[in-house]
Amino acid sequence: MANKKITSRDLDFAKWYTDVVMAAKLASYTNVKGCIAIEPNGYAIWEKMQEILDKKFKELGHVNVQMPLLIPENLMKKEGELVEGFAPEVAWVTMGGKKELEERLCIRPTSETMFSDYYATHVKSYKDLPMLYNQWCNVLRWEKETRPFLRSREFLWQEGHTIHATKEEAELETKQMMDVYKWFHHEILAIPSITGLKTEKEKFAGAEYTLTNEALMYNGVSLQAGTSHYFGQKFSKAYDIKFQNKENKEEYVYQTSWGTTTRMIGALIMVHSDDNGLVLPPKIAPRQVVIIPIGESEEVKTLSEKINKELQENNITSYIDNTDKSPGFKFAEAEVNGIPVRIEIGERDLNNGVITFARRDTGLKISVSKDIQVVSYTKELLDTIQKDMYNKALERRNNLTFTAKNLDEVKEIMANQPGFIHADWCGSSECEMKMKEINGIKSRCILKDEKLITGKCVVCEKEATDHVVWGIQY
Amino acid sequence: MANKKITSRDLDFAKWYTDVVMAAKLASYTNVKGCIAIEPNGYAIWEKMQEILDKKFKELGHVNVQMPLLIPENLMKKEGELVEGFAPEVAWVTMGGKKELEERLCIRPTSETMFSDYYATHVKSYKDLPMLYNQWCNVLRWEKETRPFLRSREFLWQEGHTIHATKEEAELETKQMMDVYKWFHHEILAIPSITGLKTEKEKFAGAEYTLTNEALMYNGVSLQAGTSHYFGQKFSKAYDIKFQNKENKEEYVYQTSWGTTTRMIGALIMVHSDDNGLVLPPKIAPRQVVIIPIGESEEVKTLSEKINKELQENNITSYIDNTDKSPGFKFAEAEVNGIPVRIEIGERDLNNGVITFARRDTGLKISVSKDIQVVSYTKELLDTIQKDMYNKALERRNNLTFTAKNLDEVKEIMANQPGFIHADWCGSSECEMKMKEINGIKSRCILKDEKLITGKCVVCEKEATDHVVWGIQY
Repeated sequence: MANKKITSRDLDFAKWYTDVVMAAKLASYTNVKGCIAIEPNGYAIWEKMQEILDKKFKELGHVNVQMPLLIPENLMKKEGELVEGFAPEVAWVTMGGKKELEERLCIRPTSETMFSDYYATHVKSYKDLPMLYNQWCNVLRWEKETRPFLRSREFLWQEGHTIHATKEEAELETKQMMDVYKWFHHEILAIPSITGLKTEKEKFAGAEYTLTNEALMYNGVSLQAGTSHYFGQKFSKAYDIKFQNKENKEEYVYQTSWGTTTRMIGALIMVHSDDNGLVLPPKIAPRQVVIIPIGESEEVKTLSEKINKELQENNITSYIDNTDKSPGFKFAEAEVNGIPVRIEIGERDLNNGVITFARRDTGLKISVSKDIQVVSYTKELLDTIQKDMYNKALERRNNLTFTAKNLDEVKEIMANQPGFIHADWCGSSECEMKMKEINGIKSRCILKDEKLITGKCVVCEKEATDHVVWGIQY
Repeated sequence: MANKKITSRDLDFAKWYTDVVMAAKLASYTNVKGCIAIEPNGYAIWEKMQEILDKKFKELGHVNVQMPLLIPENLMKKEGELVEGFAPEVAWVTMGGKKELEERLCIRPTSETMFSDYYATHVKSYKDLPMLYNQWCNVLRWEKETRPFLRSREFLWQEGHTIHATKEEAELETKQMMDVYKWFHHEILAIPSITGLKTEKEKFAGAEYTLTNEALMYNGVSLQAGTSHYFGQKFSKAYDIKFQNKENKEEYVYQTSWGTTTRMIGALIMVHSDDNGLVLPPKIAPRQVVIIPIGESEEVKTLSEKINKELQENNITSYIDNTDKSPGFKFAEAEVNGIPVRIEIGERDLNNGVITFARRDTGLKISVSKDIQVVSYTKELLDTIQKDMYNKALERRNNLTFTAKNLDEVKEIMANQPGFIHADWCGSSECEMKMKEINGIKSRCILKDEKLITGKCVVCEKEATDHVVWGIQY
């Protein structure tokens, strides 16, 4: 039985999406245009994401810092491509207190500028390198059309900025962090993502190249889910970040940056959720198990508390819903909030010696003996859910993955159902622009390790250089 | 032997302070006027503060959210006192992309506005109450004179904002959170703070009353270290935050807010640190123990690793300094960074069957058998350091605490050495202003539970109503 507050996903995907965000109380609109309030249920998911990623970053030697929010215009302008890429979409502070500022300041859309300016005065010798910094913060981009989590003027993210003594080391870092994001998507978010290289047109402003993870949503639309940029010496030359190398010569550092954002909450919704609300993979769910006592008996109460205690002691995040709502209401609430497992403990069931486990992802209800080894059973069930959710997402992505040999085939696919379209490309931006004329298709990424399909560009049908994944995007 | 990069504390306290910040690599200046970069060593302390406070907040039922950074001017103006209090010191965004905005937006100096606007549309019934929200974020105040951590245009903080169905409950929350901060200062930061009530003149703009914790720095200057505000229905009336009470009548909610900031890093320095650099209480130190191997022998290496492993397994944050610097250099570095305990493991010592523990706070070196129960010994030592540091700070505060019966006595105290001055007050703001003429003395807080000293106002010598603590402030 679908949640009445939620539009059917197959009827109106966009409406369904915002309905889920609101019904699960992840975020709400505010009186600040284009900016959302991230509510407790949404923020708890972000905290979990932060906890997992932050631990991984630190294991790999990164440390956290905090750079200023505001960037003086002249400092920003030092790297030409960056300012060109971001200038149309930044917010400008022009007044401090009651005074007009001599130089306006932009609110950071990204912090290459501030990190580069910092590194320029803090690195002297190869012994200081690498410097592996990351920051968790808010950034602002003056978007015209916004949608909760997916695109909003202000969003939260982490941005890693590292400098290295050699090109090789910096390129390894770029690759390594892409692998971290891929691991995070696959293992934690249960989202299969494709890793590849952005085209010149789609890469980050100022980067030598950009690696990207691309995920496919339920409706066949792509979502860029974490990028990692190799800057070479572009920023170090613009900001004068030099060091004494082992041969005692001055050299410019090699630089990277990489980031992922609160839009991953949007991806979780659009990959896994359904007409009953949020569905969360157990590894990212802030609360994994809800226990719902049915009836007032002492036995129900005692067993509920015993199970809750055992689960918590074994690092499963469980809670008992002891509110005075009806069981049906509690079921629906746990469902809309995406709690992966619901344990129902009722008098009648107990008389028959059983309790009930319900899976949020499939809706399956399982009666088990009330004397079951509840910790190991629950752990196994959570693992199964995690794996099943990944496989389901992978199957859906495979079903929405197509290949095309020419523009007619691309049009035919798009007329039917968007998705990932694999097609060869000659490398020219003219052909990229022509693809865009079809429903706004963009190159998602180049798969450098994949063989060509036909050897001919899908647009101009001349000789192709790359196997590219194409799609429409959020 | 004092660190050469650090000015003597007794010679020039202000210079000493910034020298410690720089030498311990806690923060550095940036090309954004009035804004600092918080570096890894500084940010690690903030992370530790966040971890400890966040856990406590959550135990008390609070949840984290994130409200927008930008506040539309008209929304801000709804509560008159708040806007008057903060308008002179906010930064204004007037352009988005290339367009002038129709309504300018201020960067949050504090978020009563956004929380109130949110609550107004999210609370309906007494069943929704209390709502106990907190956010960790950056805020901006357009300060003219800045100093790393103590006062900078942008700083990091947490701001709790709660709404309640009754006055009693809201006032209990205001008090409770003050107690949390006091616990945090005393138990974690080893800083004795005084809790009291702000005068009308010094209270938060828009609050009915403000509770404050006031700490005294090494040089006798006061620092406001966490405040908790009771708003009554001021904001709920201005922002129309109503609920259906148990009697089915509409009522305005009762509201609180409370916050503490990165300036507590400044307090840690100014209470505990010395001419050799940072001194950190073990409970807030990101790294509690450094192990320094001296010499190359296998025995030194093996024992260093064994001890490090054992400490880490018992939740003591230790590390081995295996860099190729000299032992003397390593000692100095651990010292300037404020690592509470240093374990020296050297060949010559091992031949005598001993290793050396050195305390950062006192400089004391202790030779102990190499076969000591290292975990329990270290734990006990860390506990002792924590207690000793608190007691030392308390003793210093007591030595810098004075009482005054009249203005002449106040002047005499200030001519000699500033500190906390206890003196009675008649309650008039004229007398408060007259105190300010003496070196800028302000009321720190009213001690409601303390008896009057003389019964006469220290300024006008008329009948006094309150026992007040006075002092100069950062």
